[in-house]
Amino acid sequence: MSPTPKYELLYHPGIPGRGEFIRLVFEVAGVSYTDIANTQKDGYSTVQKICMSSAVETPGGNPPVFSPPALRITYPDHELIISQTPNILLYLGERLGLVPSKSEGAKYHVNQVALTALDLNDEVHDTHHPIAGALYYEDQKDEALKKARDLRENRLPKYFDYFERTLKFNKKVGDGGRFLIGDRLSYADTTTWQVIDGCFFAFPKEMEARKEEFPELLKGFYESVKGEVRLKEYLASERRLKYGMGVFRYYPELDRK
Amino acid sequence: MSPTPKYELLYHPGIPGRGEFIRLVFEVAGVSYTDIANTQKDGYSTVQKICMSSAVETPGGNPPVFSPPALRITYPDHELIISQTPNILLYLGERLGLVPSKSEGAKYHVNQVALTALDLNDEVHDTHHPIAGALYYEDQKDEALKKARDLRENRLPKYFDYFERTLKFNKKVGDGGRFLIGDRLSYADTTTWQVIDGCFFAFPKEMEARKEEFPELLKGFYESVKGEVRLKEYLASERRLKYGMGVFRYYPELDRK
Repeated sequence: MSPTPKYELLYHPGIPGRGEFIRLVFEVAGVSYTDIANTQKDGYSTVQKICMSSAVETPGGNPPVFSPPALRITYPDHELIISQTPNILLYLGERLGLVPSKSEGAKYHVNQVALTALDLNDEVHDTHHPIAGALYYEDQKDEALKKARDLRENRLPKYFDYFERTLKFNKKVGDGGRFLIGDRLSYADTTTWQVIDGCFFAFPKEMEARKEEFPELLKGFYESVKGEVRLKEYLASERRLKYGMGVFRYYPELDRK
Repeated sequence: MSPTPKYELLYHPGIPGRGEFIRLVFEVAGVSYTDIANTQKDGYSTVQKICMSSAVETPGGNPPVFSPPALRITYPDHELIISQTPNILLYLGERLGLVPSKSEGAKYHVNQVALTALDLNDEVHDTHHPIAGALYYEDQKDEALKKARDLRENRLPKYFDYFERTLKFNKKVGDGGRFLIGDRLSYADTTTWQVIDGCFFAFPKEMEARKEEFPELLKGFYESVKGEVRLKEYLASERRLKYGMGVFRYYPELDRK
């Protein structure tokens, strides 16, 4: 076996954000990593230098990064810097045992579910920033009210129905576990779980009202993933950052009345 | 060598849309595929049955699909149905020779560039549908004007600067070719090219005004990919669908004045 490389997460400090999908993968796999902006003095200046600069090159002869998160992987003889959340999940999923082993196809099914959960994540973000990410929420509140209503009434049920059917499908073909794809926990599970958890924070009334409609997802799956030993430990630790002003925000006016 | 499987693209008929990223990969690889909604009688009803239904299962024992596009791959002994554009590109890129061979890392760098181009694709879509995909453009035109302005003034330059730097980086380390990553055409190139091409259609004045600012991307790269023999043949064929009411739409009021 080759030695375990050093993993560094490059992301904004203080919020779960898109970095959380990557933290979850390390946490449930029990593999150590450094979240440099949250744990190292001057860590965020390294993130900014690598992920938010106008440089043509990043360290180690890697191509530029569009925006955080990125993952820096240091091997004995070279270093790799990769970006884009689903790309980092793909890289880690294969290496940390977070994809099913039973078939080649299952790898792509895990990836498609994770990508879909990340699309929902983006749509939730856009409920409070429908016009421009660089403007304040207060400057696009009228549009946010409309966008959030569409999310609650049309988009959430569409996504939830998809995840619910995926769980039912896997129950039918699988080993009775509560996973989305295959017979073990994958990054499809951790990624979908995180988006659902964020929705419980951002839209508590809406989510409560939807529970009976999507019981496999919002009760069975949500609680069972939350109960995974390593995830439980992580959620109780200081490493789990609180939701605040990131992707998932609680604005009562955007929730169901 | 195992026999070439049968590839079927499952997507909406009549528009390039997200299906175009997949068509381009087959076309530049010279691998045959069937675009069933555009070429088969009742093809679209198959797409709807597989990709837009409330079924728990899709044919061949595959999990549900959230929405088109999907790819159906028929092997002698089983069939695989996978969805999510970047997931399909990943699957095909590795199999059709559209990733660089030089290093494992390059595969993930190709993927990160393609994912970033697809993010821009989504942002362009949202300029004409900032509030809800299910509403008409006319019912969200005020918001569209604001969103399109942000795209033109902030987002396009940010993305273009990233692609421009990626091209400069690759020129520095590569073989002088005009590819984004590595020493051969990859799905990072075809995907980025398609988004740029769509922007030329949707925002002709804005793009013309930006050409001098991003010459590697909007002149060198764009023209050189367009000149690839197989792509050229495809663009001149009837298989290349016209832009219309899909992701890339021409509304003069959303373009630069």
